[in-house]
Amino acid sequence: MSNGDIFVGEVIGTAILILFGAGVCAAVTLRHSKARASGWIVIAFGWGFGVLAGAYTAAPLSGGQLNPAVTLGIAVDTGKWDKVWVYVLGQLVGAMLGAVLAYLVYLAQFQANVRQPGAEGGADEEPTPTLGIFSTIPEIRSPVANLITETIATVALVLPILAFGLTEGLGESGTLVLIVSLLVVGIGLSLGGPTGYAINPARDLGPRVVHTLLPIPHKGTSDWGYAWIPVVGPLIGGALAGLIYNVAF
Amino acid sequence: MSNGDIFVGEVIGTAILILFGAGVCAAVTLRHSKARASGWIVIAFGWGFGVLAGAYTAAPLSGGQLNPAVTLGIAVDTGKWDKVWVYVLGQLVGAMLGAVLAYLVYLAQFQANVRQPGAEGGADEEPTPTLGIFSTIPEIRSPVANLITETIATVALVLPILAFGLTEGLGESGTLVLIVSLLVVGIGLSLGGPTGYAINPARDLGPRVVHTLLPIPHKGTSDWGYAWIPVVGPLIGGALAGLIYNVAF
Amino acid sequence: MSNGDIFVGEVIGTAILILFGAGVCAAVTLRHSKARASGWIVIAFGWGFGVLAGAYTAAPLSGGQLNPAVTLGIAVDTGKWDKVWVYVLGQLVGAMLGAVLAYLVYLAQFQANVRQPGAEGGADEEPTPTLGIFSTIPEIRSPVANLITETIATVALVLPILAFGLTEGLGESGTLVLIVSLLVVGIGLSLGGPTGYAINPARDLGPRVVHTLLPIPHKGTSDWGYAWIPVVGPLIGGALAGLIYNVAF
Amino acid sequence: MSNGDIFVGEVIGTAILILFGAGVCAAVTLRHSKARASGWIVIAFGWGFGVLAGAYTAAPLSGGQLNPAVTLGIAVDTGKWDKVWVYVLGQLVGAMLGAVLAYLVYLAQFQANVRQPGAEGGADEEPTPTLGIFSTIPEIRSPVANLITETIATVALVLPILAFGLTEGLGESGTLVLIVSLLVVGIGLSLGGPTGYAINPARDLGPRVVHTLLPIPHKGTSDWGYAWIPVVGPLIGGALAGLIYNVAF
Repeated sequence: MSNGDIFVGEVIGTAILILFGAGVCAAVTLRHSKARASGWIVIAFGWGFGVLAGAYTAAPLSGGQLNPAVTLGIAVDTGKWDKVWVYVLGQLVGAMLGAVLAYLVYLAQFQANVRQPGAEGGADEEPTPTLGIFSTIPEIRSPVANLITETIATVALVLPILAFGLTEGLGESGTLVLIVSLLVVGIGLSLGGPTGYAINPARDLGPRVVHTLLPIPHKGTSDWGYAWIPVVGPLIGGALAGLIYNVAF
Repeated sequence: MSNGDIFVGEVIGTAILILFGAGVCAAVTLRHSKARASGWIVIAFGWGFGVLAGAYTAAPLSGGQLNPAVTLGIAVDTGKWDKVWVYVLGQLVGAMLGAVLAYLVYLAQFQANVRQPGAEGGADEEPTPTLGIFSTIPEIRSPVANLITETIATVALVLPILAFGLTEGLGESGTLVLIVSLLVVGIGLSLGGPTGYAINPARDLGPRVVHTLLPIPHKGTSDWGYAWIPVVGPLIGGALAGLIYNVAF
Repeated sequence: MSNGDIFVGEVIGTAILILFGAGVCAAVTLRHSKARASGWIVIAFGWGFGVLAGAYTAAPLSGGQLNPAVTLGIAVDTGKWDKVWVYVLGQLVGAMLGAVLAYLVYLAQFQANVRQPGAEGGADEEPTPTLGIFSTIPEIRSPVANLITETIATVALVLPILAFGLTEGLGESGTLVLIVSLLVVGIGLSLGGPTGYAINPARDLGPRVVHTLLPIPHKGTSDWGYAWIPVVGPLIGGALAGLIYNVAF
Repeated sequence: MSNGDIFVGEVIGTAILILFGAGVCAAVTLRHSKARASGWIVIAFGWGFGVLAGAYTAAPLSGGQLNPAVTLGIAVDTGKWDKVWVYVLGQLVGAMLGAVLAYLVYLAQFQANVRQPGAEGGADEEPTPTLGIFSTIPEIRSPVANLITETIATVALVLPILAFGLTEGLGESGTLVLIVSLLVVGIGLSLGGPTGYAINPARDLGPRVVHTLLPIPHKGTSDWGYAWIPVVGPLIGGALAGLIYNVAF
């Protein structure tokens, strides 16, 4: 695979992933969405099928890694480091592009996200905070615990991927992309409760940059103080998975 | 594939798709349905498994495109335009047939959709508006934003389908039809919030014609002022996906 | 396949199907169940994965038809009628066995299904009616409409199965059994609202016999007046699917 | 497969299974989890996709049995008993490791599980009991009924696995691991209502040991009086499935 194909594949694939992922968070969070408050099962399947759509689209070009933690785990396992920068660059650009696309899909909803007059004389309703649509926010702010959560959840993503023999990419196998996407659904359902499961530095960092730059009304904080955890945790987890795989398999 | 096979395949496949899709909207919307108010997850899986049922049934006859936006994207990609009219005609006829079938499945529910006397002396309950069972209605009426939503959501459908190499139809691959149907579930969950995700001109136009013609009691407006958006948006999206695929892959 | 293998396969497969199907209805309906009131999505996936479990288990022995409407549709299509009675007999016996097994799984729940003293001095709560765990009950009692619903829903089951080329049984293909089971999930979500989707005469009749015979406390009526509809409707639908398949494919 | 590979595979695979399974119970149960109170559908899919993740990861090393009841059923069927102890030992160690990992993922949530001051002057909220995150608790305590439930539910797991021809392990087949994981989703949805579906002695016993040992604040009872049922029931069910398979297939 040429550097150009890898870059384009990772940009398109990660953009689709984040379009679906940020999209489903917008769908569940924002007023005037048909999916409003439809629950955690919707979030988890929305992200998982974003992996399905993005990885399978990217597969013929780049193998569809879409995640620097996966790329790192594969590099630690195989010892091939020369293409890592191309993958990661594509993933970051794609994640930013996907966040912009999700914003455009929910444009009218973001613009209507203003103070709502209280129904029947009740108190006015404040605008919905928007960062959670783009990036992760922990339920309990605790750097050590949050880092542990993201690290273990990322091992649970990357170790199966390595064991599936996916270091060469998904190839033509629809079944493998299906399994990886349902694996991501499972991580969301089971391990997403404490931090919202970044498990992917690009997934969190790219959209946070976009959230900072876009002129979203009443968007609230971009919370850069937390931004290092969903980058460092998944990178530790990806490297750890590569090491465990090398030792155990 | 002969024109006759294509036409029959697309009629049957699209009829099944809309039977399931309009069916699940009826199931969630109408009083006296066991699935009443069962939420967005039911809507999204109902439509997705409608694709599963319709596309796999149609596959041996027509390849199972079931959507003018998919047909357009494939034509833009392959440059073969001569069969497009047969596909689209079959899709429109099938969509109308499917809407009638869904109406028949929920016949007693539609007939019971009248003013309900208020429980315990409360206010009477009005009949449920029925257009949303047949065609899409935006949460916020904004032509530009609605068009953007439908366009991007359709790119997210057609680009993966092209990348999957499905331009020749689904063939015998059950795995591919499964992936496409879960892709549609994902689009519903993630991108359906603002407009109800037509992403298919036939899916919206055919049932809207049926809604206009059928003698449904208390059916409310057929909202023809909005009808061009779920036709034009998906067509732009399908063509755009064909162009992106040609450039990037 | 010998008559003995067919009979044993259909008994075991249909028993597993009804164990899961009646089981999930018990899970959602009965007090003291962890899944109580968990909604239509649980019902639909429970039945669908019951098909998965039952059909794949039965596949090596009988092909895993588990449904007289499927057997009838295949006979109409292929013209082979000599084994039909073995299939249907096995399906009826299996459905009764499965209903007994589901009763045993929820034994303590059935025994605790008595009048509950009202919380905080409120009115006592009546026992939950139990027929809906075993057999289908229409939301609106209307023989014509109910028959139409069951007929169309069964066509939506059997026509795809015939188009999938499953007339020889599922063979070793896990992908096909997966698709059929998700098809059944889709029928439940989309077309189950009015009558609870029998779409299978054995599925409804066998458990109704068991409901009549078992000494379940406070079990309520077995509603034999309705029992012919979920038998006749699916048989019409199965035959119709066979005819449509012969003409169109 | 060497004893070492079997042991390591079962440890890793069962640890992943319990990480997901205990994780999803924590996600739904604990305050300050994004998935709090998200319902039975989340529990069932979380456990099922834990099987997906664990079994596919373990498959190249040990075949991915992850459950003494499955191991016993295979031994009864094949008559090969010499490796059983290695499998079961690995499964028990893995289940304990997985429970510790799930505890670490939800560390901050467990530490915040203390008496909550009542909102708006209401009564204080007690800490959430934590045993249900680790091990099963029956809704109605009835040894005979609980044992019947666990036995039948385990037959419904192991008999299909034997019929699928999985006695040699999952091999490279992604489709089979997908089917087994959805089978487990189905058992959860349909048969999990009365006892919480252990259907696996290691899944219940290992985490119960960990619950007893870990210094979890306000953890409540470890309920050792019930502990024998989710061990004995699944073992009877696994052996029974092996016998049924030998007779019927």
